Amino acid sequence: MTHPVYARIDGPIILIGYGSIGRGTLPLIERHFDFDRERLVIVEPNTALAGDIAKTGYRHVAEAVTEANYRELLGGLIAPGGFVVNLSVDTSSLDLIRFCREQGVLYIDTVVEPWAGYYFGTDDNAERTNYALRQAMRDEKAANPGGTTAVSCCGANPGMVSWFVKEALLMLARDTGVAADPETRGDWAQLMQTLGVKGVHIAERDTQVRLTPREPGHFVNTWSVEGFIAEGFQPAELGWGTAESWMPDNAHTHDAGCLAGIWLQQPGAATRVRTWCPTPGPQFGFLVTHNEAISIADYYTVGPAEAPEFRPTCHYAYHPCDDAVLSLHEMFGSNQIQDVHHILDVDEIEPGGIDELGVLLYGHEKNALWYGSRLSNEETKALAPDQNATGLQVTSAVLAGMVWALENPEAGIVETDEMDHRRCLEVQRPYLGPVEGHYTGWTPLTDRQTQFPEDLDEGNPWAFRNVLERLA
Amino acid sequence: MTHPVYARIDGPIILIGYGSIGRGTLPLIERHFDFDRERLVIVEPNTALAGDIAKTGYRHVAEAVTEANYRELLGGLIAPGGFVVNLSVDTSSLDLIRFCREQGVLYIDTVVEPWAGYYFGTDDNAERTNYALRQAMRDEKAANPGGTTAVSCCGANPGMVSWFVKEALLMLARDTGVAADPETRGDWAQLMQTLGVKGVHIAERDTQVRLTPREPGHFVNTWSVEGFIAEGFQPAELGWGTAESWMPDNAHTHDAGCLAGIWLQQPGAATRVRTWCPTPGPQFGFLVTHNEAISIADYYTVGPAEAPEFRPTCHYAYHPCDDAVLSLHEMFGSNQIQDVHHILDVDEIEPGGIDELGVLLYGHEKNALWYGSRLSNEETKALAPDQNATGLQVTSAVLAGMVWALENPEAGIVETDEMDHRRCLEVQRPYLGPVEGHYTGWTPLTDRQTQFPEDLDEGNPWAFRNVLERLA
Repeated sequence: MTHPVYARIDGPIILIGYGSIGRGTLPLIERHFDFDRERLVIVEPNTALAGDIAKTGYRHVAEAVTEANYRELLGGLIAPGGFVVNLSVDTSSLDLIRFCREQGVLYIDTVVEPWAGYYFGTDDNAERTNYALRQAMRDEKAANPGGTTAVSCCGANPGMVSWFVKEALLMLARDTGVAADPETRGDWAQLMQTLGVKGVHIAERDTQVRLTPREPGHFVNTWSVEGFIAEGFQPAELGWGTAESWMPDNAHTHDAGCLAGIWLQQPGAATRVRTWCPTPGPQFGFLVTHNEAISIADYYTVGPAEAPEFRPTCHYAYHPCDDAVLSLHEMFGSNQIQDVHHILDVDEIEPGGIDELGVLLYGHEKNALWYGSRLSNEETKALAPDQNATGLQVTSAVLAGMVWALENPEAGIVETDEMDHRRCLEVQRPYLGPVEGHYTGWTPLTDRQTQFPEDLDEGNPWAFRNVLERLA
Repeated sequence: MTHPVYARIDGPIILIGYGSIGRGTLPLIERHFDFDRERLVIVEPNTALAGDIAKTGYRHVAEAVTEANYRELLGGLIAPGGFVVNLSVDTSSLDLIRFCREQGVLYIDTVVEPWAGYYFGTDDNAERTNYALRQAMRDEKAANPGGTTAVSCCGANPGMVSWFVKEALLMLARDTGVAADPETRGDWAQLMQTLGVKGVHIAERDTQVRLTPREPGHFVNTWSVEGFIAEGFQPAELGWGTAESWMPDNAHTHDAGCLAGIWLQQPGAATRVRTWCPTPGPQFGFLVTHNEAISIADYYTVGPAEAPEFRPTCHYAYHPCDDAVLSLHEMFGSNQIQDVHHILDVDEIEPGGIDELGVLLYGHEKNALWYGSRLSNEETKALAPDQNATGLQVTSAVLAGMVWALENPEAGIVETDEMDHRRCLEVQRPYLGPVEGHYTGWTPLTDRQTQFPEDLDEGNPWAFRNVLERLA
C-alpha cells in the first residue's frame, strides 16, 4: 500500500483531543499530509495521556478547551494556513467553528459537540436533541454563508455514511435501470424519491469481542465510552419521512428549523429497533440519536420543509459490541453509570471481529439494500496503527474530510451530505476493508412472533410502527 | 464432608430425563440413598446421551415419555416402593402424578410440565400461563386429597426459594422483635402480613461467565436452553398483591381458581423489572413466569381468594448469565430461535462465577431483605460432580424433596410451600454454599434518572408500577 500525500498544510495543525480517535487520526495525518512537525500541537487535558503524547514528540498543551478560555487558548496556537481538528468531547463545535472562520483557519469535527455539561445539564429534552444542536449550526451557516471551510460531523457516522447513501442510490439506480447523474442536492433528493426509497437505517453491527470477559461494573466499548453514554442518554431521535402514518405516543415534533425530525421521550440507548446487516441478518439495534438521522432526512427532502412532497425516514440502528450491550443492560438496570470505562484495544479483540457499518435503504423496488464497510480488526492492524476497526472508520473519514477541505478551502460550513462523496470515498476507501452492497428480502415484518398480539402496520412493512420495539 | 444416607428405596427409581439436571441429580441419589443399582432406570430419548448413560452402568430406556405411551412405558418400569424422578421437559406432570399415585409410587418434579407442544401450541395466552398449569394441579389435589406423596415443583425455583421465604420471615421477625412460631399455612400468611411484607422477588443473579466468548447464533445458558426459551416465551406473570393500586394496560386477571395472579400480554424473557441482589446491588431481572410466583402469593393470602385481606405480590426477577442475556437479545432481535444450544459446563466457566439465588422480601419496616444461596462454581466442583452452581441448587432441592417424600409418603400432592422447610433445608444446605440474609435500603425508586419523565408511584416505592421497566 502506497500512501499518497494529498496536500501541504503550511500553518499549525491543532489536534484537540487525544482519545481513541485523536490517537488514531494522528498517524493518518502524518502519512497523508506534508507539514512541519513542530507546528502540530496536541491539546489534551487528561494528564494520564501525557506520557503517550510525549512519545509522539509533538508539543502537548495539557489544557481543556472551555467556553471561558477557547479564544485565548486557541488564539495563541492557530495561524492562517492552519487546521483545527476537533476530536474532543465537551468542546462547542459552534463556537469553535465561528472562531476558526473568523481567523480564516480550516476546521473539522465528527459531531456537533456542545460545551461540557450540556448533555446532562438541562431538563428540556427538546434542547438536548441533535436536531437542536444541528439546527444551530445550520442557522450559523445561513447567517454566514460561504467563507472559510468548516466541515461539520465528518466521522464514520455522522460522516462517511452520508457518502454511502449516495453510492447506494447510484447502485440502486443502476440495478433498477434508472438513469442517474445527480449533481445538486435537489437532484439527489429527486433520485431517492424516484427510486421509491422510503427510508434509511444507519445499520451497524460491531462483532468485535473481547478475549477476556467483561468485568461487572465496567462499561466496555470499542470507542469513547463517555461519548456513547452521552448520546445514549439523549432522547431517541430520527428523521421523519413522508411514508410514516403513525407516531409513538411519546414522540415530539419541532416547530422551527428544518422540520425533518422527531424525538421520543426516552433515552436512545434504551430504545430497540429492528434492522438488518449482512453478517447477523436481522437484529436489534439501538435508536441512538445522531446528527445524520436529521441531516440525511433534511438533505433528501423534496418540496417545502413544512409540507414535503418526499422525505425519507432516517435513523441510527446500532448494535454495538456485545460487551457494550451488556454494559448498557447493567447501566440502565442499576441506574448507575459505571466507574470504570474501557475501550477495547486492537490487541484485546478476538480475531475475526468486524465493524460492519453501512446504510440500509429500504422500501424500494428491490426491498432493501445495505451498503457499507465491513472492516475487520485484523485488516485494521495491517492498515493503520493505534486503532481498532471502529476507530479506523472514523479516522479515515476525518482524513477524507481534511483532504476535501484543503481542496475546497472556501466552501463555508458544510455537512458531509454537501461534499463530493466520490472524492471523499476515493481518499477513505483504502482504509475501509470490503465496501459492499447487499440486497435483502427481509423486512421488519419477517418472522414476527405470533403468540402475542402486536400493533403492526401490515400494509407498510417498513413503517416505523413495525421497526420500533414496544412492550407494555 | 460426610454424606448421610437418608433412606432406603426398595422399589425401582425411574429417572426421566438425563439433561443437565438429571445428570447432576444422579450422583446425589447415589450418595444419599440406599438402593439396588439394577433397579435404577434412566429414561432419555436423546440418543446423543446414550454413551454418557452407558458409562453410568444403569439401564437406559431410550424412549420419549409421551401422552400416548406413558402408561405402558412407565407401567412396565415402576413398582410399589419405587420413586419416579421427573426431570424432563415435555412430560405432563399432571398425568404422571395421577398415574404414580394410582400405582402408589412416589413422584417428584421441578416444574408443572405439560406434554410436548403445549408452550407453543396454543394462541390463547391465558392457557399458556403457569397459573393455568398450576391450577390444574391444585384442582387435582382438591379432587383427590391425601394419598401417595407427589412433590410438585421442587427444584431451586420453584422449590428451594419457598423454603427461603420462610427462613427470611423468621429472620425478619427476629430482627424486628416480632414473636413468631408459625405452624400452619394460616400462621405463615399471618406472619408475613404482620411483618408488613408487601411482596417478594425471586431475585437471582448468575455471574457465571464463559472463558471463551459466545459465538453468534448460539444460545448459551447455565441450564436447559430449551426450558428457558419455553418459559421465556410464556407470558410474563406474577402473583398480584393487595398493596398494588396500578396494573399495566396489557395485564389480565383470572376468573377461576386461586385468583392470586395476573399475566401480561408480552413474553416474560422480554420483560425487564428492577430488583436487587447482594453482589450486583440493583439490576434488571427478566420477569419470566414461574410456578412459585403464583404459589407463594396463594400460600400467603389472608382472607378469601376473591377479596383477600392480605396477599403479597410475587414474581421472578432473573438476571441469567451474561451469555444468556446476549442470547435473548439476539433471539428477540432476529425473531429466530438459535440453532445451537449450549449449556456451560462447570469447566468452561471462569473462576469466581456464582449463582446468587434468593428471595427479596420488601416493603416492611427494614425495607428489604434478600435471603438466599450464593453458590460459586468453584465450590460446586468440590461439592458434587457433573454440574455447575445453577445445577446444584436445583439437584440438591430434588434430593431434599425426595428425602421429605420418603419420610412423608402419604402426604398427597404437595408444593414446596407446604413442606417442612426446616427439614428440607437441613438436607439441602450442605450443597448451597453461603446461605445468607442481607438487608438493603435500595428501593425501585432509588437513583431513578430524572431526564425523562416516568409514570411512577412516588408514595409506594415498591409498587409494581415502579418495578416494571416501561418505554414507549
